[in-house]
Amino acid sequence: MDSTVDASRKEKAQAWFQDLQTTIIAALDRLEAEAPVDLFGGAPGVFERTPWTRAPETGADGRPVETGGGVMGMLRGRLFEKAGVHFSKVDGLLSEDFAAQVKGAGPDRKFWASGVSLIIHPRSPKVPAVHMNTRMLSTTETWFGGGADLTPVLNYQREQSFPDAIDFHAAMQAVCNRYDPAWGQRYKEWCDEYFFLKHRNEMRGIGGIFFDHHQSGDWEKDFAFVQDVGRAFVEVYEALVRRRMHEPWTPADREEQLIRRGRYVEFNLLYDRGTLFGLKTGGNIDSILSSMPPEVKWP
Amino acid sequence: MDSTVDASRKEKAQAWFQDLQTTIIAALDRLEAEAPVDLFGGAPGVFERTPWTRAPETGADGRPVETGGGVMGMLRGRLFEKAGVHFSKVDGLLSEDFAAQVKGAGPDRKFWASGVSLIIHPRSPKVPAVHMNTRMLSTTETWFGGGADLTPVLNYQREQSFPDAIDFHAAMQAVCNRYDPAWGQRYKEWCDEYFFLKHRNEMRGIGGIFFDHHQSGDWEKDFAFVQDVGRAFVEVYEALVRRRMHEPWTPADREEQLIRRGRYVEFNLLYDRGTLFGLKTGGNIDSILSSMPPEVKWP
Repeated sequence: MDSTVDASRKEKAQAWFQDLQTTIIAALDRLEAEAPVDLFGGAPGVFERTPWTRAPETGADGRPVETGGGVMGMLRGRLFEKAGVHFSKVDGLLSEDFAAQVKGAGPDRKFWASGVSLIIHPRSPKVPAVHMNTRMLSTTETWFGGGADLTPVLNYQREQSFPDAIDFHAAMQAVCNRYDPAWGQRYKEWCDEYFFLKHRNEMRGIGGIFFDHHQSGDWEKDFAFVQDVGRAFVEVYEALVRRRMHEPWTPADREEQLIRRGRYVEFNLLYDRGTLFGLKTGGNIDSILSSMPPEVKWP
Repeated sequence: MDSTVDASRKEKAQAWFQDLQTTIIAALDRLEAEAPVDLFGGAPGVFERTPWTRAPETGADGRPVETGGGVMGMLRGRLFEKAGVHFSKVDGLLSEDFAAQVKGAGPDRKFWASGVSLIIHPRSPKVPAVHMNTRMLSTTETWFGGGADLTPVLNYQREQSFPDAIDFHAAMQAVCNRYDPAWGQRYKEWCDEYFFLKHRNEMRGIGGIFFDHHQSGDWEKDFAFVQDVGRAFVEVYEALVRRRMHEPWTPADREEQLIRRGRYVEFNLLYDRGTLFGLKTGGNIDSILSSMPPEVKWP
């Protein structure tokens, strides 16, 4: 590919992910402010944005290694007990070990990646937890990855027939179907397969979509798709939060939520590739483990 | 080895581990009953013993596979917020995959194992959490494994100069030194190495001893050593609990405890061989995850 075209695509994608972080944070701050005082108490929290950069380092082989930067966004609020919305862009050379696992890594081991990742743990057990992540990666090849999945914490909300599950799936399927009807089915199945706790033989949430190495051959189309996943996610999650945030909950609901969150911890530490990879390669602990639920029980 | 001798050793070891479970449960029940009411409230909890057996099954190759039985002991009390003291004896044939990893596994893949394992999460942040485990394994070889390590949850108690750390180490070292001065140093170092969170570059607790494939060539001596580890553990932990259970604590102490417990979860799900092996091979979830702390925070 023409390297000017390539550079412009990276710029466009990075700008989009930065915008998406801003959009999501604005939406969550708005909901946090709107949350009913009788259920969630006094002053709303606001997102704290922490920019970070990693200076270029020299690897064992004397070549510069990965450098990066981004903005961690964390909210510890009243409606959103803990929410992380992170933007990052990393750039540089893959380690030799890692290069072997990365699609299209060339002999120079150059790579580029940018994306947004998000996990939200609401305080109310009636409001579902959620995860979303979209990113672009570039080596000698360029592709997108990501997905969005919903984790209601109360059993009666975890049925596929529950309205929130229906609406979440409809939103994600609509995005896929606008581009290619095959994507919806494939990415839904991939999600069910990925967010699964084998040791308990149970799903983490109610599903959604999950994709990687997404590369249809038409970059503009793929980029538009990924943007639409981000937009559709914000829209549907905002609607679900507004629908549920006025519902009171009981101590038994809270207990069920805290126990269900334990499954989230088990998934992230036992199976989640991003978490395990990050922890085992000396990634930023604060950022990687910002996904952990704020309070959990294994009674 | 003469198979009559061998059978009698298995019987003796198994009987010891059953007795040890009973002794530990009695000691913890006693402490639970003694706990000061002003700090721990009303009625003490008592251990619930749940016997289990696994019926012989036929493996994929048509041969019988591992069968087992034991007694899970669980206390959800006032002083001991959550404590598990489990006895088990398993017997049968190792799977082909597993046999490759087990010392001395013969072509018939026969094995026998019995032991006691324990994890205690006290309610008071002033009382240290603890883990202990001793077991005998037999394939074509016979050996012992186990250890005991202390996890104080408040930073000021996590110094090696804190009296509880000094006394715990002294108790474990005294047992080792009675048998072989080299064991104490070796098993202490092994403990520090094993109970270590690489991703945080920190120890789980303050250490203790850890050993595996313990086989000096003198079974009677090794068995006596393992019995003494169990006895010394009960004695020193009982003393530490009695020393600390009258100390009041603040909400800030409790918060520190709940966060520290998160590290315990991280260790068990990311590194602990027994936990990972059990979860990935379809072990009993309730028993394996009975080690998880009852309440945890990642704020």
